[in-house]
Amino acid sequence: MNLTAKAIAELLGGVVEGDEQVFITHPGKIEVAGAGAITFLSNLKYESYIYSTQASAVLVNSDFSPSKKVDSTLIKVKDVYSAITTFLEFYEQSFHPEKSISSLAFIHASAQLGDETTVGDFTSISSEVTIGKGCRIYPQVFIGVGTTIGHNVTIYPGVKIYHDCQIGDDCIIQANAVIGSDGFGFAPQPDGSYKKIPQVGKVILEDNVEIGANTVIDRATMGATIIKKGTKLDNLIQIAHNVTVGEDTVIAAQAGIAGSTRIGNQCQIGGQAGFAGHIEVADKVKVQAQSGVAASIKEEGRKVYGYPALSYQDYLRAYALFRQLPDLEKRIRELEKTEK
Amino acid sequence: MNLTAKAIAELLGGVVEGDEQVFITHPGKIEVAGAGAITFLSNLKYESYIYSTQASAVLVNSDFSPSKKVDSTLIKVKDVYSAITTFLEFYEQSFHPEKSISSLAFIHASAQLGDETTVGDFTSISSEVTIGKGCRIYPQVFIGVGTTIGHNVTIYPGVKIYHDCQIGDDCIIQANAVIGSDGFGFAPQPDGSYKKIPQVGKVILEDNVEIGANTVIDRATMGATIIKKGTKLDNLIQIAHNVTVGEDTVIAAQAGIAGSTRIGNQCQIGGQAGFAGHIEVADKVKVQAQSGVAASIKEEGRKVYGYPALSYQDYLRAYALFRQLPDLEKRIRELEKTEK
Amino acid sequence: MNLTAKAIAELLGGVVEGDEQVFITHPGKIEVAGAGAITFLSNLKYESYIYSTQASAVLVNSDFSPSKKVDSTLIKVKDVYSAITTFLEFYEQSFHPEKSISSLAFIHASAQLGDETTVGDFTSISSEVTIGKGCRIYPQVFIGVGTTIGHNVTIYPGVKIYHDCQIGDDCIIQANAVIGSDGFGFAPQPDGSYKKIPQVGKVILEDNVEIGANTVIDRATMGATIIKKGTKLDNLIQIAHNVTVGEDTVIAAQAGIAGSTRIGNQCQIGGQAGFAGHIEVADKVKVQAQSGVAASIKEEGRKVYGYPALSYQDYLRAYALFRQLPDLEKRIRELEKTEK
Repeated sequence: MNLTAKAIAELLGGVVEGDEQVFITHPGKIEVAGAGAITFLSNLKYESYIYSTQASAVLVNSDFSPSKKVDSTLIKVKDVYSAITTFLEFYEQSFHPEKSISSLAFIHASAQLGDETTVGDFTSISSEVTIGKGCRIYPQVFIGVGTTIGHNVTIYPGVKIYHDCQIGDDCIIQANAVIGSDGFGFAPQPDGSYKKIPQVGKVILEDNVEIGANTVIDRATMGATIIKKGTKLDNLIQIAHNVTVGEDTVIAAQAGIAGSTRIGNQCQIGGQAGFAGHIEVADKVKVQAQSGVAASIKEEGRKVYGYPALSYQDYLRAYALFRQLPDLEKRIRELEKTEK
Repeated sequence: MNLTAKAIAELLGGVVEGDEQVFITHPGKIEVAGAGAITFLSNLKYESYIYSTQASAVLVNSDFSPSKKVDSTLIKVKDVYSAITTFLEFYEQSFHPEKSISSLAFIHASAQLGDETTVGDFTSISSEVTIGKGCRIYPQVFIGVGTTIGHNVTIYPGVKIYHDCQIGDDCIIQANAVIGSDGFGFAPQPDGSYKKIPQVGKVILEDNVEIGANTVIDRATMGATIIKKGTKLDNLIQIAHNVTVGEDTVIAAQAGIAGSTRIGNQCQIGGQAGFAGHIEVADKVKVQAQSGVAASIKEEGRKVYGYPALSYQDYLRAYALFRQLPDLEKRIRELEKTEK
Repeated sequence: MNLTAKAIAELLGGVVEGDEQVFITHPGKIEVAGAGAITFLSNLKYESYIYSTQASAVLVNSDFSPSKKVDSTLIKVKDVYSAITTFLEFYEQSFHPEKSISSLAFIHASAQLGDETTVGDFTSISSEVTIGKGCRIYPQVFIGVGTTIGHNVTIYPGVKIYHDCQIGDDCIIQANAVIGSDGFGFAPQPDGSYKKIPQVGKVILEDNVEIGANTVIDRATMGATIIKKGTKLDNLIQIAHNVTVGEDTVIAAQAGIAGSTRIGNQCQIGGQAGFAGHIEVADKVKVQAQSGVAASIKEEGRKVYGYPALSYQDYLRAYALFRQLPDLEKRIRELEKTEK
C-alpha cells in the first residue's frame, strides 16, 4: 500500500489536519510506529503518545484538539474504532490476489462454484464438489470428491480437505491444515499386528469456524467429527475421529483431543493440553495449558490444571508444596529424631 | 453413493426382505442412523435397536428372524461382518479419483511407475524415482530424486518425500506428512552460533506402515531413520534423525521421539508423549499419554507414566498423595505442635 | 551417486591406495558401513575399525599408515575433516534438482528473481515478490504478495509464506512449514461468540535462520513476529503472533511459544516445552523438554524444568521426593501412632 493521507481521509470520510500529501504504507502502534505508518488515538489516557509518535498520520476523533504541537498529520473521523476497522480491512485486501479463477487450477466438470468465488493456481477440486458464493480458495488446495463448502469461506494455500466433508459458511482455514484424514483406528490381530478399520465417516465444520495452520481433523470411523459454530482452533492441533467440539469454544495451539471425546460450548482450552478419548467436558470449562484431562468434567465452568488435571486451585496448592518437598522431608526427619 | 437395497444385496450376495427400491447413500450406526443409511446387526445383544432404527436398510445374518415388526429393509447375508467389510470398501472406493495418471502432474522421464499406479494433479515426481504397482498418488505430492516406493502404496495430497528414501509395500501416508526432511543437527561454534551438519542419510519405511497427517520423519545424519513393518503413526508426530521404531508399534498423535532413540516392537505410545534422545525402549512397553521418557526402559512390557516417567502404579500412587500434600503438611504441623 | 574411488580422489585432491575402480554410492559410518560406502578415519582412537570395516573406501590423512592389512581402498587426503565436508556437499548436491526455473511454476510478472535462483514445479509466486540470488525454491511452494526473500535461501516443497513477510539471507525452510499465518486473535462478544481481530503485521526471519518441517510462525497483529539471526527451529513448532526469538537460539521439535513472548539470545529450548504469552526469557536460558514456562525468567543462563518450571535442581530434588511420597506418608503415620 502506498496512499497519501488525503486519499485515506477520503476513504474513511475524515478531514486532514497537517501534510495531506504524506505517504502511508502500513498501520502501526502509536508508541513504536515510524515514517509511513498510520496509527490511532481513541482513549485519551494515551494522549501523551501523540506528541512523541513518529507515525506519519494519526486517526483521531473529530472532537480531539491537541494541547501541544503534533508532528504527525491528523485525520479526524467521526468514530476512530470504526475508521480503524475499515482501514485495516482495506489494508489487508491490498495483499489479496485479484478476484478470479486461475487457469492453472484443476476444477472437475461436475464441481459447482458460486458467484465471486476465486480459485488459486494448482488447486485441485474433485468431482461433485459444491462451493458457495464469495469464497477465496488459495493456491495448492485439494478438495476431495463430494465435499461441500458454504459461502464466504477462505481456504489458505496447501489446505487438504478429503472427500465427503462439509464446511459451513464464513469459515477460515489456515495454510496446510488437513480436514478429513483417516481416523487412527486399527484392530489388533492375534499375531500382534494391526488391521486398518475403514474410516467411512466425515468431518463437519459448522458456520464461522476458524482452523489454524497445520491443524488436523480426522474423519469419523462412521458418522461425523464435528466442530460446532463459532469455534476457533489454533495451529498444530489434533482432533481425532468422532470428536465433537461445542460452539464458541477456543482451543490454543498444539492441544490434542483423543477419539470420541465431546467438548462443551464456550470452553477455553490452553496450548498443548491433552484430552483422553471417550470423555465428556461440560460447557465453559477452562483447561490450563499442558494439562492432561483424563476423565469427564461434569461441572460447568470448572477450571482445571495438572497432569492428570485437578481443580486449578488444588493443583496450585499441591504444587506449591511439591516445591517444598525437600523441606517437608526435613521436618519429618526432625520429628523422627525427637521421637527417639 | 446412491444405490437401491436391491443393488447392494446383489453386490453382497444377499437377499432382500422389504422395500428393495429404497435408496442407500451411506453407512451408519444402528442407534443413530437415519434415512438413506445402511447399518448392520450381528450381536443379538443389540437386537432391540433393529425395531427402532431409522436406517433405510439393515444387514443381518441369514438365520435372523425378527420377533417384532421391522420398518427397515433387511438384507440377509451369510456373514454380516464379512458383508459389512465388503460394503465399506466399496463405499470408500466411490470417493476415490478415477484410475489414471493426471496430465497435470510432472513425472521425470527417468522415473519408473508400475502398472495401475495413479498420479494426481500437480504432483511432482523427480528423476530416478521408482514406484511399484497399484499405488495411488494423490494431487500435490512431491517425491524427491532417487526415492523408491513399493507396491499398493497410498500417498494422500500434499505429502512431501525428500530424495533417496525408501517406502515399503502397502504403506499409507496421510496428507501433508513430511518424510526425509533434514535432521536437526548443528555444530556449536566458538562465537555461540551454529553450523549446519549435512544430513546425508535417509528414511526407510518398511512394509505396511501408516503415517498420519502432518507427521514429520527426519532423515538420518548418516545411515537411516527406520520405521519397521506394521507400525502405525498417528498425526503431528515428530520422529527425529537416526531413530528406529520397531515392528507393530502404535504411536498416538503429537508424540515426539528425539534423535537416535530406539523404540521396540509392539509398543503402545500415548499422545503427546516425549522421548529423550539416545535411549532404548524394550518391546511391548506402554507409555501413558504426555509422559516424558528420559531414560532407557529395559524391561519388556513395562507400563510407564509421568514426567519424567515412573512405573504406572508408582506414578498413580505418588500423584494421589501429591493431591493430598496440603493435608500432609497440616499433619506435620500438628505433630510439630505436640512436640513443643 | 555412482563414482569410482579414483574419481572421488580426484575430486578431493587425494591419492588412492588399493582398488581405484571400486564404485562408491553413499557415505557411511565406519562401524556399520557396507559395500558401496565411503567412510573416514581421523581420530586414531578408532583405528581398529579400519581393519574390520566393510566400507569400499576410507578417507584417511596422508600421514596415516596402517599397522595391519586393510581390505578397503584408502583415499589419502591432506585433511580428512575438510575432505569429508567437501564430499558430503557434493553427495547432497547429486540429489538436488537441476538449476532452472520450471515452466510449470507460476511467477507473477511483477515478481523479481535474482540470478541463479531456481523455482520448482507448481510453485506460485505472487505479485511484488522479490527473491535474491542463488535461491532454491522447490515445488509446490506459495509466496504471497509483497514478500521479500534474501540470497541463498532454500525453501523445500510445500512451504507456504503469506504476504508481506521478510526472509533474510541463507535461510533454510523445511517442507510444509507455514510462515505468516494469521495470529490467534479474537475479541469476545457479549453473546459468548468471538470476533476475529485483523492480523495485519508480518513475520521477519533474519539471516541464517532454519525453520523445521510443518513448523508454523504466525504473523503479528500489528508490527512483526521476529526470529533473529542464526536461530534454528526444529519441526512442528508453534510461534504465536508478536513473539520475538533472539539470536542463535535453538528450539527442539513441538515446542510452543504463546503470543508476545520474548525469548533471549543463545537459549536452548527442549522439545514439547511451552511458554505462556507476554513473558520475557533472558539470554542463554536452558529449558528442559516438556517444561511449562509460566513466568518471565530474568536470570541469564538459568536452567529450568517442570510444570510450571522451577530451577532444574529444585525440580529434580522435589521430584525425587515426589516418587517417595507413599513412604513419606507412612513415616508421618508412624509418628502419629507414637504420638498417641
